[in-house]
Amino acid sequence: MTQMNIGIAGLGVVGAKTAQLLLSPLHSQHAAHLSLKAVSARDKSIDRGFSLAGIDWHDNALALATREDIDIVVELIGGSEGIAGDLVSAALKAGKHVVTANKALIAHHGFELARLAEKHQVSLLFEAGVAGGIPALKIIREGLAANHFSRITGILNGTSNFILSEMTATGRSFADVLKEAQAKGYAEADPSFDIDGVDAAHKLAILAALGFGEKISFETVQCKGIRAIDKADISFAGEFDYTIKLLGIAERDGMRSVQPCLISNTNSIAHINGAMNAVSVEAEPVNIINCSGLGAGAGPTASAVLSDLIDIAHHRNAPAFGVQTDALVDAPNFSTSEQISKFYIRMMVSDRAGVLSDITAILRDLDISVQSMLQRGQPQADSVTLVMTTHQTSVDAIEKMQARLAKADFVKGEIMVLCIIDANELK
Amino acid sequence: MTQMNIGIAGLGVVGAKTAQLLLSPLHSQHAAHLSLKAVSARDKSIDRGFSLAGIDWHDNALALATREDIDIVVELIGGSEGIAGDLVSAALKAGKHVVTANKALIAHHGFELARLAEKHQVSLLFEAGVAGGIPALKIIREGLAANHFSRITGILNGTSNFILSEMTATGRSFADVLKEAQAKGYAEADPSFDIDGVDAAHKLAILAALGFGEKISFETVQCKGIRAIDKADISFAGEFDYTIKLLGIAERDGMRSVQPCLISNTNSIAHINGAMNAVSVEAEPVNIINCSGLGAGAGPTASAVLSDLIDIAHHRNAPAFGVQTDALVDAPNFSTSEQISKFYIRMMVSDRAGVLSDITAILRDLDISVQSMLQRGQPQADSVTLVMTTHQTSVDAIEKMQARLAKADFVKGEIMVLCIIDANELK
Repeated sequence: MTQMNIGIAGLGVVGAKTAQLLLSPLHSQHAAHLSLKAVSARDKSIDRGFSLAGIDWHDNALALATREDIDIVVELIGGSEGIAGDLVSAALKAGKHVVTANKALIAHHGFELARLAEKHQVSLLFEAGVAGGIPALKIIREGLAANHFSRITGILNGTSNFILSEMTATGRSFADVLKEAQAKGYAEADPSFDIDGVDAAHKLAILAALGFGEKISFETVQCKGIRAIDKADISFAGEFDYTIKLLGIAERDGMRSVQPCLISNTNSIAHINGAMNAVSVEAEPVNIINCSGLGAGAGPTASAVLSDLIDIAHHRNAPAFGVQTDALVDAPNFSTSEQISKFYIRMMVSDRAGVLSDITAILRDLDISVQSMLQRGQPQADSVTLVMTTHQTSVDAIEKMQARLAKADFVKGEIMVLCIIDANELK
Repeated sequence: MTQMNIGIAGLGVVGAKTAQLLLSPLHSQHAAHLSLKAVSARDKSIDRGFSLAGIDWHDNALALATREDIDIVVELIGGSEGIAGDLVSAALKAGKHVVTANKALIAHHGFELARLAEKHQVSLLFEAGVAGGIPALKIIREGLAANHFSRITGILNGTSNFILSEMTATGRSFADVLKEAQAKGYAEADPSFDIDGVDAAHKLAILAALGFGEKISFETVQCKGIRAIDKADISFAGEFDYTIKLLGIAERDGMRSVQPCLISNTNSIAHINGAMNAVSVEAEPVNIINCSGLGAGAGPTASAVLSDLIDIAHHRNAPAFGVQTDALVDAPNFSTSEQISKFYIRMMVSDRAGVLSDITAILRDLDISVQSMLQRGQPQADSVTLVMTTHQTSVDAIEKMQARLAKADFVKGEIMVLCIIDANELK
C-alpha cells in the first residue's frame, strides 16, 4: 500500500463526511495511508462540525489538479457540465487518480473520461455515483468478473422510492408526501432530477455500460418519472398484489428504461422500501445476485468514496468500465415499440351505456388481451374509474390504444399506463 | 494483466465447471489471460461432458504445487484435513497463488495459511468458500473497506434453507423433505455438515474474521442445526408471523452462533427461500448492506473461483483476511449465557389441572417474562402442546428453565427452545 495524498473538491454533505472520516482516526486500518492535503468549496466560513486546520483551502477547485503533492482528486461538486468536468479532465491529464460520485458527469462524458484515464495510466472510479453504499460497480466489475450479464434491474433513486413507499404505506398523495420529503431534506427544493427519473437513468446507464461492456450511452435510456402516479394507482396495484416502484431495467442488446412499474409482491425487489436502493443482476454462471442498502446520505456515499480511495492506495486497478475503452462496444439502439410487457391501464370514463363496449372494441382491434378489469363507480358521479391489466402486448399496441382512447369523448383526463413486472419475472 | 497458468485439483461439480469455463471461449474478456495447464482428480475415466485434451493429468494433486509452469493452484478437493491442506501449504510454500472453495480448511487453518501466503508474497483467496455466488468476501474486504463492522448476519447453508423453506411452504416434516433433497442431489447422503450447522459455522467464522479483523476461530462459533425442528414449530412460527431460518450471527466482540431462529417476517432475510443464501452486514458509515444469491451449485461457485483468478491476473492483491496477519486480533471469548434474546418455547405437557401454574411459577422465579402463550389441546389426548414466546431474557435463565422443566413429571419429551429475531431487529 502506498501513501496517497488527497484533495477533495466540494464539501457538501458527502464531501464533508469524507473529509471528516479521512481526518479522524479511521476505524479501518485499510485507510491509514490516505492523507487529506487540500480541499476546495464555495464557502470557507461554514461550520462543518469538524476542524480543517492544517488542510490547504482552495477557492478554485482546479487548483487541486495542478498541485504536485496531490495523488488523488476527489470530485464531489456534481453536475454533468461546468467546473466538475473541467476538474476531472484536468486532474486526469495531470496524471492524478480521480474518485467521483458524479453520476451525471459519468453518464454523459464517462467514455471520454475513461479514455483520458487510460491514456494517463490513472484510475477513474465512481462507485459512489451508483446505489449509494452498495458496492454495485465493484460487484459487477470484479466480484462477478467472469459472468455474462443478461439483465440488470434496480431501484436507483432513494427519493422516489421513499415517496412511493410512503404513498403505499399511508395512502397519501404524491404532492403531500413530496412536501414532507422536502421538509425532511430527503428531496431537493427542485426535485425534478429525482422524481422525473433522470438521476436513476444516469445510474442505469453506468450499470449497463459496465455490465455489458458498452460505451456509456445516457441517450438510449428511456426515462419516465413518478409525478403522475396517483394514490388510486398505488391502491389498485395493492388490490392486484403489486407494488409500484420506480424501476430501472437494462437488458443486454435490449431495452434500457427507468419507469414506474407494478411489481408483483412475489419479487423481493417489491419489498425494498424507503430510502433503500437495490441492484439485481442476472448473469451466467452466477444466476442472480441481489443487493440492497441505503441509496444516498453522507455515510453510505462516503463509504463508497473511501473504498475507491483504498483500492487506489492498494494498487487494485481496474479500467473505469471493466475493460479497456477500445474493447467497449456501442450501446444497442433498441426501439421501445418492440418492447413486450403486461400493462396496467387506469382512466376515468363517462358512466353511460356503451362505453365499455367501445373500449373493448378498440382493444380487440389492436389485439390487446385483457387479463382483469375493475370498474368502480361512485354514487352521484357522472364518471367512473376503469382499471385494466393486460396480458403480454407490445408498447406499440398500447400507444395506439392511448391515441385512439384520447380522441374518444367518453374518456376524461389522462390515461395512466404502467408496465407490470409479474410474479417471479425478476427471479 | 498477466498471463496466468492454472492447475485445478478436484474435478467434482465445481472443479469440472471451472475447468470447462476456463477451456471454453470465456464470455468475459477479463478471463482471457487465464490458461488451464493441468488438473488432478481421483478418476480420469469419468465422462465430465467436455474434453480435457491437451491438459496434463496428475493422479497426485501435490504434483500441481511442484510444477514450475503453474502460477495458481485451485484447490477444490475439500476437507479441513488431509490432501487439500497439504496441497494448499505446498503450493503457497512454492510461491504459487492459491484459490480455494474449502471453507472447512480456512475455518480451521486459515490463519496459518494466510501467514504462509504473506511470507511467500502470494495471494490466498477463498471467495467460493462463503455464500456461493455472492461476492461477500470482496464486498467486506474491499467494497466496504472503510467500514467498522458491528454485525454480520447470514443464511449460509443452501441445503438447510431449502429444507426449512420446503417445510414452511408445504407443511411437510423434516425427514420427508430431507429425503427429497437427497434424491434431488440438494443434500449429501451424509447431510450432517449441512443440517447440523457445521458448514454454516465454517462460513460464519470466515466472515467474522474478515469483518472484524480477527484471527479466524471456528471454535468460538456456537452451532446448532435443524434436525430437531418439527413441522409444528414451523406452523406456530407462521401463526406468530415469523419464519424459521438457520441463521448465522456474528457480533463484534460478541456472540458468534449458527442456530435455527424465528425471524419476524418484517425482516427481509425471512424471505430468502430455497437454495438462496444471504449475507447482511451492519457497519459504519455504510449502515446496512444486504446481499442474496444462490449459495451453492456449479455455476455460482465457479463464478466465485473465476473472480478470484481474475483478481490475481489483474494483480488486485489483498491480504487473505483484509489486513496483514500481524494486525489480526484474537477472537473474543463470549460466553453464550451472557446472550440476551427473546425466545420461542414449545413442549408437550400433561393435560391436567395445575400444570400451567407450575410452569408459570418456574418462569416467575427465573424472571422470565412471557409475551404470548398458546395451548392447543386435542380431543382424547392426555397431553397438550404448549407454546410460549418470551420477552428479552438471558440464555442463562432459559437454560435454568429447561433444566427445571426437564425434571418435572408433567413435561413429555424434549423442550424446543429457539431464539426470536424480532421486527426490524436486523434493520
